[in-house]
Amino acid sequence: MSGKATWIWYPDDFEIWLHQKVSLRRQERHATVPPIWKLDSCHSSVSFRKRVELEREETILLAAEGQFYVSIDYVIIHDPPDAILLRPGTYELTVWVANENGLPAIYVEGDTINSDGSWEVSYNTRKFVPAAHLQFNDASEPPSCYRLEVEPIRPVGWMASTESPYGRIYDFGKQTFGYVRLHGLQGTGTIHLYYGESLEEALSKRFCETLDTIKAESDSAVYTNPRSRAFRYVHVECEGEGASFEELTALYEYLPIEPKGTFRCSDELVNRIWDTSVYTLHLNTREFFLDGVKRDRWVWSGDVYQSVLMNFYSFFDDDVCKRTMIAVRGKDPVETHLNHIMDYSFYWFISIYDYYTYTGDTSFLAHLYPKMVSLMAFCLERRNKDGFMEGYPEDWVFVDWAEMDNRGVVSTEQLLLARSLEAMSAFASAMGDSERARTYRELHDALLPQIEERFWDERQSGLVHSWNEGKLNRHLTKYPNLFAVLFRYLSEEKRRGIAAGVLLNEGVQSITTPYMRFYELAALCECGEHDRVMEEIVSYWGGMLDLGATTFWEAYDPSQTGAEHYAMYGRPFGKSLCHAWGASPLYLLGKYYLGVRPDAPGYERYTVEPRLGGLEWLEGSVPTPRGPIDVYMDQTTIKVKASSGTGRLRIPAGKRAVASIGEVIEREGGYEIVIDRPGETYVVTYG
Amino acid sequence: MSGKATWIWYPDDFEIWLHQKVSLRRQERHATVPPIWKLDSCHSSVSFRKRVELEREETILLAAEGQFYVSIDYVIIHDPPDAILLRPGTYELTVWVANENGLPAIYVEGDTINSDGSWEVSYNTRKFVPAAHLQFNDASEPPSCYRLEVEPIRPVGWMASTESPYGRIYDFGKQTFGYVRLHGLQGTGTIHLYYGESLEEALSKRFCETLDTIKAESDSAVYTNPRSRAFRYVHVECEGEGASFEELTALYEYLPIEPKGTFRCSDELVNRIWDTSVYTLHLNTREFFLDGVKRDRWVWSGDVYQSVLMNFYSFFDDDVCKRTMIAVRGKDPVETHLNHIMDYSFYWFISIYDYYTYTGDTSFLAHLYPKMVSLMAFCLERRNKDGFMEGYPEDWVFVDWAEMDNRGVVSTEQLLLARSLEAMSAFASAMGDSERARTYRELHDALLPQIEERFWDERQSGLVHSWNEGKLNRHLTKYPNLFAVLFRYLSEEKRRGIAAGVLLNEGVQSITTPYMRFYELAALCECGEHDRVMEEIVSYWGGMLDLGATTFWEAYDPSQTGAEHYAMYGRPFGKSLCHAWGASPLYLLGKYYLGVRPDAPGYERYTVEPRLGGLEWLEGSVPTPRGPIDVYMDQTTIKVKASSGTGRLRIPAGKRAVASIGEVIEREGGYEIVIDRPGETYVVTYG
Repeated sequence: MSGKATWIWYPDDFEIWLHQKVSLRRQERHATVPPIWKLDSCHSSVSFRKRVELEREETILLAAEGQFYVSIDYVIIHDPPDAILLRPGTYELTVWVANENGLPAIYVEGDTINSDGSWEVSYNTRKFVPAAHLQFNDASEPPSCYRLEVEPIRPVGWMASTESPYGRIYDFGKQTFGYVRLHGLQGTGTIHLYYGESLEEALSKRFCETLDTIKAESDSAVYTNPRSRAFRYVHVECEGEGASFEELTALYEYLPIEPKGTFRCSDELVNRIWDTSVYTLHLNTREFFLDGVKRDRWVWSGDVYQSVLMNFYSFFDDDVCKRTMIAVRGKDPVETHLNHIMDYSFYWFISIYDYYTYTGDTSFLAHLYPKMVSLMAFCLERRNKDGFMEGYPEDWVFVDWAEMDNRGVVSTEQLLLARSLEAMSAFASAMGDSERARTYRELHDALLPQIEERFWDERQSGLVHSWNEGKLNRHLTKYPNLFAVLFRYLSEEKRRGIAAGVLLNEGVQSITTPYMRFYELAALCECGEHDRVMEEIVSYWGGMLDLGATTFWEAYDPSQTGAEHYAMYGRPFGKSLCHAWGASPLYLLGKYYLGVRPDAPGYERYTVEPRLGGLEWLEGSVPTPRGPIDVYMDQTTIKVKASSGTGRLRIPAGKRAVASIGEVIEREGGYEIVIDRPGETYVVTYG
Repeated sequence: MSGKATWIWYPDDFEIWLHQKVSLRRQERHATVPPIWKLDSCHSSVSFRKRVELEREETILLAAEGQFYVSIDYVIIHDPPDAILLRPGTYELTVWVANENGLPAIYVEGDTINSDGSWEVSYNTRKFVPAAHLQFNDASEPPSCYRLEVEPIRPVGWMASTESPYGRIYDFGKQTFGYVRLHGLQGTGTIHLYYGESLEEALSKRFCETLDTIKAESDSAVYTNPRSRAFRYVHVECEGEGASFEELTALYEYLPIEPKGTFRCSDELVNRIWDTSVYTLHLNTREFFLDGVKRDRWVWSGDVYQSVLMNFYSFFDDDVCKRTMIAVRGKDPVETHLNHIMDYSFYWFISIYDYYTYTGDTSFLAHLYPKMVSLMAFCLERRNKDGFMEGYPEDWVFVDWAEMDNRGVVSTEQLLLARSLEAMSAFASAMGDSERARTYRELHDALLPQIEERFWDERQSGLVHSWNEGKLNRHLTKYPNLFAVLFRYLSEEKRRGIAAGVLLNEGVQSITTPYMRFYELAALCECGEHDRVMEEIVSYWGGMLDLGATTFWEAYDPSQTGAEHYAMYGRPFGKSLCHAWGASPLYLLGKYYLGVRPDAPGYERYTVEPRLGGLEWLEGSVPTPRGPIDVYMDQTTIKVKASSGTGRLRIPAGKRAVASIGEVIEREGGYEIVIDRPGETYVVTYG
């Protein structure tokens, strides 16, 4: 046997199947809470084909997930289908598989015939496409065996095990995720587990968000709870005297990825913020990018975009990006916006735009391209007569959790549409689809001046909120303005006007969600406000650490006290204390302080523009597909070392800049040095 | 509790789920053979909603297939979800259900709140439709429990149990279907069951089409084989001395419907043909109309149409018609023709046209209407520049198993399209969709003269086969011509020309499949050739009975001998000996000899035009939604009694016709009597 075989299936079906399973794991107390959106299933019946030319007879071994049979030039082989002797000759080998309860997949292993990406597959529409495969290379480990890694963990610290009014409290020392285990379980009876991201939550039998009830029926050396939970504390109550156990531990479940990005600086609090952000993102980076591990445990496209960006300065794991993009998009036909939210359809395009820029992964672009085209067609179909996107009654026009009237044409949505069209034009070009590239580009080019004309308010020096029933709603919010800055739309002059008149204007409604603060702080960095943003990072994220946070939260209001912090959605412990969007310092510190960003897909060209933002020194490494870019900066020296590609190091204006290698050029009110010697450290003194 | 609750689900999902299960039951020896077409799955995650106004508090009991929770005005209820106390008030009650492995469905029972068709459901697209329900009115019997009836049967006759070279043969006396049972199973070892629709097949361990292997591991009073099989004979071999049993019986599985139509006549052979046809159709009328019980056990739209027609003269079960129409159509979007076959898309429209005419079931029409419109849009989209349907490379243009070149524009397909457009126009009118009604009518009216102009060959007095690459293929086949006769297209004169020049012309390629002979014999009856068709019925179907058939076959060639009859598709026992389309005498005898047919939907108006076709007398009852129409005829007397509606009794020209009730009018070369007195027997003497 050649051993080159791998499990294969219909493209996207693995991700769609896995997304369905993962999405149905959200529980709130006794309720299983499926997503509020359409949940696709994988195709249940598919056929795989391969043109074979056999010089000598060969026995192939087959394994399948589902019921299956083999045909040769469409004649059914009636043998037991797991080992088949093939005669010499040239013919079409087809394996038909149906799986009512999961992903139909096959594994074929022979001397010369092995299932791999050269096979084609159809969901029996007679249209065949290349089969998909991942890392399932063992006949006995089909894709349905996909599991994250687990590792035993134990309660730690002074509260590792303490009595509670009803039983015992176990503290794992920090927020974690996994399966609780009871060792030495004896007797019969009921054991209740109440989980807490906070101690208060674990102690609240009535209001803790998640709980489990174990019916002990026989002695067990180790009982492992079948459901994974998010917790730091576990509060255990044994009902009556029936059942008991000796020890409680857990299996920590995680995606086996290591951070490739690093960051260290002169401020230890900022270093702790970085580390806690890495851990927060890691816990939420699982089968897919989840919004939070306690709640919702769902895949929301708007949250995904932020995780994608953070990922590029930390784990740089493109597999989870791809799994997530496929899953959240689902199957055609498009019947609703992603997660029902208009903005979230746009964030999907924009996520892929950034994914492509950071990774240069053209093949994934090609893979998703048809579904991008169909989602964009769905969006464009919903424009009003002026060419703007307005919410249909069934659409959710979200933007942010804040006071605003999202009826009619909301300016933020139009900016996201413009960026999506820009992305689609770039994708179409990369795909050689010049006709669509032109169409999208023309739509984009026509839309931008239209937005400006309709929404720019010279008096307020910003884009105003919306247009409804023939009237302009002059409500000034930060949202459209920060996207105009981030996407570099409008003129340089107007962007400066926005910075002063909107972003730094305390009279404008402030943003209270970490979700939109992500973009706000990024936009402030784009406006050169690094010192101010660093102060913000220290006070906001540092504030959570001061309150004992071990991961960052879904929301944080410094004016609250005590257990008030844990309440949300009208429930005392409704807030997620481990929320992906809480980890945004990863992106801010990587992109705007280490200052590394790609200028061409896959970092073929890039910029390094480090900023201290009030720190004494900083250093770190930013992962790229071509190897790391290492940056060090203090008040007199900058060091940069890259593995590949061509970069430009940009240094703000000053009296001087002297480089150990390369030429220092004065440009755009600063200095610039071209970095084109892989592996060599460029040392620049400046000041 | 009011007891008015019933299980509810998303419309069509029950049928789609059941179709998936049933379609995956086809086995050939060791191979499970899924259908060659796309197999849809039901939605896995849906939400049900109901606006409730409660005057006093009420506890509702919930049962669900899948994981579920309840929300009130979109706030999650965290209680264990199976019994919920609702407070007084007016609010929206929503039940969210997800089922990864089957049909999501719920059952809600309270004092005033009960799940029923007044609830709405969405697959979480935010578009809600009324929930579907059938006869599942018991909380403990959800739709997943749907089973046909079973009844114990035993081997009979002289061969009830006989030794074979390897074991024993059991004969159930006639073709049957169900689960073999072994009584008094003892010991451990392997028992092989080889099934035969013929004795030869059961004796052929190597070539029998279906078999089972039982691994006996413990003693069992009654072991029931888990898979249903089609068989008359079971050949049992106990491997070695390990396992044995005392008795073999079976559970006959059937749809619990009784024939409502009857037929008796002076020829006992014709009576046996009728009875055997009823049994053949009954065996194939199950969860859906299947093509054959041994093979394919699939739902083919072309076969379905014939079963639908036969059903109207025998069981008149509209439920199986509806289940089948929904299942074979599947979900939107339409990606291929039904079963991949262009003709089979058209037969679906035409089946519904006849279904509607016979039943008058407007509500089912309304239910399917959106999917009719989308399938017709798919078809019309595929017309060529001349407005004709041509096969795309992935389409199967079938017509019949016979020598013909189906490239280009095949005339038969255009006639089926015309009939489908006629049907769609009628449906649109019935739905009050006058715009589409006009569009379809105009397309139909334009297409008919185009067909005639392109394909009518005056010299051959018929429609010729096809048009390909700018050339007319003058090959003369019966197919387009018999449909022109059946659909009453072309002029009366041309139809007479077709009868003489094509249908009765022995020089024209004869039809050899029972599938197309169905239409051929019907068309001959339309041309008044009742005597000739009766001779054909007696010789063709009588021929199978002479060979010992207990059900009618997929194909029959009188020139073959012995076991040659059982071979097909290159396999010695490949032929199905119990095939729905073999039962076509039901339709022929009912429609053209008893002579009863509806003239307006649901038999509001109808015609009775009995013909002896060479018999001395005949009598029978034809079911209608308004009660039976009874007919008797001999060489001097006709008697008709109807329960409702207005009919016209038509009697061929002769010297006289005298009626006991009503007035005899001379019309169109015959006599006519209006039947408008329900329950009274009209007696007419003629001659």
